[in-house]
Amino acid sequence: MKINNQHYRSIWWNDALQLVQIIDQRYLPHQLVIQNLCSLADCATAIRDMWVRGAPLIGVTAAYGMYYAALQANNNNHLQTLAQQLIDTRPTAVNLRWAVEQQLNSILTQTNTAKHAQIALQNAHQIANQDVEICRMIGVHGLNLLQQIAQKKETINILTHCNAGWLACTDWGTATSPIYQAAQAGINVHVWVSETRPRNQGANLTAWELNQNNIAHTLVVDNCCGHLLQHGMVDICIVGTDRTTYTGDVANKIGTYLKALAAHDNNVPFYVALPSSTIDWETNNGIQNIPIEQRNPNEVRYVSGLHNGTIKEVLITPASTPAANYAFDVTPARLVTGLITEKGICPATQTGIAQLFNHQTTS
Amino acid sequence: MKINNQHYRSIWWNDALQLVQIIDQRYLPHQLVIQNLCSLADCATAIRDMWVRGAPLIGVTAAYGMYYAALQANNNNHLQTLAQQLIDTRPTAVNLRWAVEQQLNSILTQTNTAKHAQIALQNAHQIANQDVEICRMIGVHGLNLLQQIAQKKETINILTHCNAGWLACTDWGTATSPIYQAAQAGINVHVWVSETRPRNQGANLTAWELNQNNIAHTLVVDNCCGHLLQHGMVDICIVGTDRTTYTGDVANKIGTYLKALAAHDNNVPFYVALPSSTIDWETNNGIQNIPIEQRNPNEVRYVSGLHNGTIKEVLITPASTPAANYAFDVTPARLVTGLITEKGICPATQTGIAQLFNHQTTS
Repeated sequence: MKINNQHYRSIWWNDALQLVQIIDQRYLPHQLVIQNLCSLADCATAIRDMWVRGAPLIGVTAAYGMYYAALQANNNNHLQTLAQQLIDTRPTAVNLRWAVEQQLNSILTQTNTAKHAQIALQNAHQIANQDVEICRMIGVHGLNLLQQIAQKKETINILTHCNAGWLACTDWGTATSPIYQAAQAGINVHVWVSETRPRNQGANLTAWELNQNNIAHTLVVDNCCGHLLQHGMVDICIVGTDRTTYTGDVANKIGTYLKALAAHDNNVPFYVALPSSTIDWETNNGIQNIPIEQRNPNEVRYVSGLHNGTIKEVLITPASTPAANYAFDVTPARLVTGLITEKGICPATQTGIAQLFNHQTTS
Repeated sequence: MKINNQHYRSIWWNDALQLVQIIDQRYLPHQLVIQNLCSLADCATAIRDMWVRGAPLIGVTAAYGMYYAALQANNNNHLQTLAQQLIDTRPTAVNLRWAVEQQLNSILTQTNTAKHAQIALQNAHQIANQDVEICRMIGVHGLNLLQQIAQKKETINILTHCNAGWLACTDWGTATSPIYQAAQAGINVHVWVSETRPRNQGANLTAWELNQNNIAHTLVVDNCCGHLLQHGMVDICIVGTDRTTYTGDVANKIGTYLKALAAHDNNVPFYVALPSSTIDWETNNGIQNIPIEQRNPNEVRYVSGLHNGTIKEVLITPASTPAANYAFDVTPARLVTGLITEKGICPATQTGIAQLFNHQTTS
C-alpha cells in the first residue's frame, strides 16, 4: 500500500544493496524508519523486539531470516540450530514456525549446499508473494460483502480492532484488504479505528496506514465501540485473528470478544478476515483450550507517545499498582457472522469451515 | 477514606483558615495536592477544570461555592447571577444544579441578608454530610450482596469501571462503598480496576484510592474485562452511574455497556450503585433519550502520565488523526441485575424502582 503516495511493502528485498529492508514499526506513527536487516541476528531481533509484528509479517521475516541462516551455516546441523534460534524469538507465533519449516524442508532436499542460500532467498520471495496474493484474495471476497451493503448505504461504516492491516502482513492486510479494495472500487468507506489498548496498535498503526491510503477514518477508545454499535453508526465489523479453531472460535487481540458481543446485541454483522493458515485444525474449544499469552504488566502501566518531538513513555498509574496483561481473548463462534478467507467466505462453524476447505477434521 | 493512613474527605471546611479545601484530582495519582478554594471563582474553576469531578462531589463543591457567593453578593439578584455562573461551569451536571438550587431556596427565604453566608455555610456542611451518609448506606446494602458471595468464596473478585469511588463523592464512594465496608467486615476482596480510557480514571483514581485503603486490586485495560468474565475471574460487577432512568437504563462512563454485555453473557451479576438523586424520573428510554456528551477529541489522542518525575502529555496517534470522544454510554436495564441505593437494593425495572421509592412515575 501507499506511504507518502509511494507503494511499499512492509518487508522487501533490496536488490541493489543485497539485503532485506523493513518498516520499523516501533517508531510508527511518529517516524517512518526503514531498517536494514543484514543478518540472521538482525531478523531475530526484528521479530523478538517487535520491529515487525503481525503473524503473516513475522512469517515472512523469518523466511528471509532463513536466507541469512543458509549463508551463515557451516552444515545442515548448524542450519537447524540457527533455524531454532529464529523459532525461539516468539515461540507462540504459528506462522513463524511454519515459514522456518518450509524453508528447512526445501533447503535440506538440496544436497549441493552451495545453492542453499539461493534457494532460501527464492523461497522467501515466494512466501512473501504468496502472502500478498492471499491477502489480495481475502479482499476480493470481502469486497462482495461491502458491495452488498453499498447498495443500501451511501457510506459504509466499518469497525475494526487492532491492526490487521497491511503493516501486519506484507501488503493489503487481512481485515483491511476488503476496505482498501472497496475504496479502489469507488465505494465510500469510513473506518472506526478502536485504539486497542494496551499497545495502541489501532491508534498507532491502523490510523496511520488508513491515513496514508486516504481512507476516511475516526479513532475511538475501545470503550466507545458499544455505543457506536448501539446507535447504528456501524454497518459491519471486520477484525483479524491470531488463531481460529476449526469450529469457528476466534482468538484475537484482547477486546475483540467485547466488540463481538456488542455487534451481536445490535444485529450488526461481525466478520473475521484470515488466511487459512490461521485455522487451527486440532482445537475444537477455543475458550477452554487456546492458551492466552500474558505479557509484561508495564505495557498496561506505561503509555508511549510523542512529546515535544521525541517518543516518550509516561506512567499512568500509581507507582505500585499491579496490572494484568492478557494479550488475547477468544470470541465464541456463535458471535461470529462469518470468516473471510482467501478461498471465500464461510460461516464460523465446523461444517462451514470444513466445506470451504474440503477438510477432514478427523485426519 | 484513608490517605497515608490519615482520614480525609475529598472536600472539607478548614475552620482554622476559614476556607474550603479539596484534593486536587488533576495531579492524582502522581502527586497529592491540597488546594484552597477561597472564593466563588475558585470553586467555579475547580468544577469547570475538573480539579474535582464525580457528580456528588461537584454538587458539594457547588454548595460551598454558594457560601462564597452569599459572602460576595450585594443583593438577591446579584446572588442569583452568581449562582448561575456556578451552574454554567458544567451545565449537564444534575447534582450541581440541585445543590445550587437547594442553597438558593434556603438563603432567599431568610430576609436578613447578613445571615445569608452563615446559612449557606451550614447548608453546605449539611449537603456534604448527607452525601457521606447516603454513600455509607449504599455500602451497608451492598455489603449484604458481598456477604452472600463470601459464604461460597474465599476471596470475592469484583470488577469496577471508572471511578465511582470516594474521590467522586465526599467519602465512601458509591460503587466502592460496599467494597470498603466488606474489607472492614473482614471479607477478602480483590478488585479488577479497568483503566477507563480515555481519561484513565480507573488507572489514575480508583487504583490510587484502593491502594491507599489497602484493598487488593489489579489494573487491566478495558479490553480485558470480557476475558476475565469469560474465565470465571469475576464474581460480581459494581459500577456507578451518572443518570439512571426510572425504567432502569443506566448512563455511565463510556464502556460500561460492554462490561454489562460480557457479565450477562457469562451469568455474572452486574450491579449499579447510586444515590437515589441520580434517578431520572422523567425519561423512560435511556438509549433513545439520554443525550451523550461528546468531549474534546484530544482526550483520546493524548495520554497524560508521569515521565522523569513530572506529568507530561504524549500524542499516541498520527498528528492528523481525527477522533470521536463519546463520554458516556447507556446500558439497557435488561443487562442490569440490580440497583444498590441508599434505600436498599431493587431490580433495574420500573416496578422495582417505583416500589423501593414509593414513587408515582406519572406524578
